[in-house]
Amino acid sequence: MSRPASPRFDPARERQAVLFANEIFYRAFSDRDFPAMDRIWARTASVACLHPGWPILTGRDAVMQSWRGILSGPAPSSAPIEPEVVFAGETALVVCLESLDGGKGWCAATNAFVREGGEWRMVLHQAGPAPKPAAPAPAQPPRAN
Amino acid sequence: MSRPASPRFDPARERQAVLFANEIFYRAFSDRDFPAMDRIWARTASVACLHPGWPILTGRDAVMQSWRGILSGPAPSSAPIEPEVVFAGETALVVCLESLDGGKGWCAATNAFVREGGEWRMVLHQAGPAPKPAAPAPAQPPRAN
Repeated sequence: MSRPASPRFDPARERQAVLFANEIFYRAFSDRDFPAMDRIWARTASVACLHPGWPILTGRDAVMQSWRGILSGPAPSSAPIEPEVVFAGETALVVCLESLDGGKGWCAATNAFVREGGEWRMVLHQAGPAPKPAAPAPAQPPRAN
Repeated sequence: MSRPASPRFDPARERQAVLFANEIFYRAFSDRDFPAMDRIWARTASVACLHPGWPILTGRDAVMQSWRGILSGPAPSSAPIEPEVVFAGETALVVCLESLDGGKGWCAATNAFVREGGEWRMVLHQAGPAPKPAAPAPAQPPRAN
């Protein structure tokens, strides 16, 4: 009797899981919840973070130290707008606008995720100033497939 | 006689190939060489580009249209400084500083690459303003392993 095949990577199924991980990142940011921020970042994979106007940070210690400082300060809330998931192999790249303090400012961001222990974990975040979108993003109905 | 195994992904071997692809991108940028820029971007995989201060661009047509405009205008030269390669599965994420016009300005960038047809091709570029590095980067001797 053959052994069951291991679950295959299914982009359609994983897309929602990636968007959920992306939401967790922004929720942790807006709630200034350092433990949640710590959990969403990968522990095994190499990580890097490019905060707006900062030197490039590589390595988990430097990245988490930056978040500890940012989340203990007067950081704005940040919400992802119109996130798009691009799968590059089994890595997920999310690009999205970030609405800061409910639209008082805007950034554009790249968030990269890989799977660790069955969960999507962040390996890279870069954000930088972006123009205000031309029009409010329309509500997106759930996709049927 | 068994068939030879297909080549396995070897991060140590691929790192130099990724850095070469990253160099091709910046050479195309600095030379305002649109055909070279067109070649380095993936044709099969989805692509996205986040130019500093621009709306997010997704899809090859929009991305290449942006490069056609940028490379036909007064864009500065841009050289990668201290690029670091982070492999996320079989996707390569390069983070680097960009020295604009020989250090007159600085950006930080994320460049993501995947392999298509045996070559590393860009699927994502994001750049944003960054501070000038504190000191000139020291020359890096080749790694022995």
